[in-house]
Amino acid sequence: MTGDLYLGYRNDDANTPFGKFFKPEMASLPTHVVEALQHGPQGGMALSAFGDAARVAEQGYQQTENGYGVLEDGSYQVSVRTDMPGVTPAMWSWWFGWHGCDSRRYKLWHPRAHLSAAWKDGDDAGRQGAQRYIGRWSIISEYIGSTMLNGAIQFVAPEELGCPPDGEDAVAICARLGSSDAPVDIGWFIHHIRSTPNGAEMRSRFWMGGPHIAVRKAPGVASKAVRPIASRILGDPVASGRNLLVHCAQEMNHLAGFLPELYAAFGGE
Amino acid sequence: MTGDLYLGYRNDDANTPFGKFFKPEMASLPTHVVEALQHGPQGGMALSAFGDAARVAEQGYQQTENGYGVLEDGSYQVSVRTDMPGVTPAMWSWWFGWHGCDSRRYKLWHPRAHLSAAWKDGDDAGRQGAQRYIGRWSIISEYIGSTMLNGAIQFVAPEELGCPPDGEDAVAICARLGSSDAPVDIGWFIHHIRSTPNGAEMRSRFWMGGPHIAVRKAPGVASKAVRPIASRILGDPVASGRNLLVHCAQEMNHLAGFLPELYAAFGGE
Repeated sequence: MTGDLYLGYRNDDANTPFGKFFKPEMASLPTHVVEALQHGPQGGMALSAFGDAARVAEQGYQQTENGYGVLEDGSYQVSVRTDMPGVTPAMWSWWFGWHGCDSRRYKLWHPRAHLSAAWKDGDDAGRQGAQRYIGRWSIISEYIGSTMLNGAIQFVAPEELGCPPDGEDAVAICARLGSSDAPVDIGWFIHHIRSTPNGAEMRSRFWMGGPHIAVRKAPGVASKAVRPIASRILGDPVASGRNLLVHCAQEMNHLAGFLPELYAAFGGE
Repeated sequence: MTGDLYLGYRNDDANTPFGKFFKPEMASLPTHVVEALQHGPQGGMALSAFGDAARVAEQGYQQTENGYGVLEDGSYQVSVRTDMPGVTPAMWSWWFGWHGCDSRRYKLWHPRAHLSAAWKDGDDAGRQGAQRYIGRWSIISEYIGSTMLNGAIQFVAPEELGCPPDGEDAVAICARLGSSDAPVDIGWFIHHIRSTPNGAEMRSRFWMGGPHIAVRKAPGVASKAVRPIASRILGDPVASGRNLLVHCAQEMNHLAGFLPELYAAFGGE
């Protein structure tokens, strides 16, 4: 993070080759997302168990493609689909590598919630494709609902969560999610993107809290000491699950609206 | 307040010249309000800071015209727009002066939530225009969501919140909001109404709780002692913000639906 945190563009923020893609207006939520919100929290068994995380990469669809709720293990789970005409899985691989070095890029994605992004290693040179984010930590600040998250997103290879290696027809963006203020991890996510006849669809899965709370890099250490920190970050599971579903639906639909153009212009970077 | 509190009209309540305007059915919420509810709580920086309250009177629109959420200072903020074809700003000036002396008038506004209204000074004679409410205390009982508020609405001049003086094209209804049961204030609001090509639009702004909790008429007194009272009135910020948004959208849309006729009939009173 550099400098003050603020929403949107100020001063000469737009004076970049990509600045014209900053669009403060966001579209309405898709109908299938609105319906998921209307339904509210779902029963744990209707949702995706973390042990079955890799099944998002299987053909077909799961019982809950759009919804949220609390699992038997105390974690909360969120699933949401984003339909993306004209988009390819490779565009998302590129995006996850390209955006993380510059808050102005990160803000393109969710102009109402994203505040800052930087790679923890600070080094953006000589990396290509998925190696530009896998194994790296993206240090971000963003609002989820009204709550500001100072997050450390630790991208891992798809294989680490049991997903097949990325290919032309499908990629899985996988990460451990934690705090950037304290060495506490709190969840996992997968954004699985696969080709469709007219573009691609992203199927996002989050598992937050419960057994996913851990002292970072010390998985054997009892998480008791860090539970108060994690609880503050996680908030109420039902409210936070809802907020996360809205946030994810907003940002993915928003970016997908101009990702093909953005990729055409900067995909070579 | 006189007598029992009850919702709606009973007995001969409708036997007034304005009684025919009591319409128990309320319209659906406008689409832009429904979308704000779908989005849920917004990040504090996307909302209107109290220090910028007067900016609602500027031309154009703000980042969040419809939404709610918790600000960094712990208060919650609500914004909502009401489109009002055929309405003028002057009609609202008249309404705020006219309704407050009679619960039957107050109930026209929100037939499902308004219980009683009376001016604290009890004296309604010889006042005209905005001087009929500015500087006065409207003692009301109403539901916000499921919570009954016994409120003291202390109207102030627009200038007190930094807004320009009222004119033909725009008026700002401004007030300090507190309890009528205890000398505790809890918030502020502005309803800014400006002309549009086909009528007027109201842009409402509320700031509740946090630094706005104070012992009435003793702003220097530590608010610690009254925080429990204020907390009980204010409730959970996210839930209360949502409820206040719904309440305001309902009452303003409802009244706007017949305000031109009401004003035509009683605007001379």
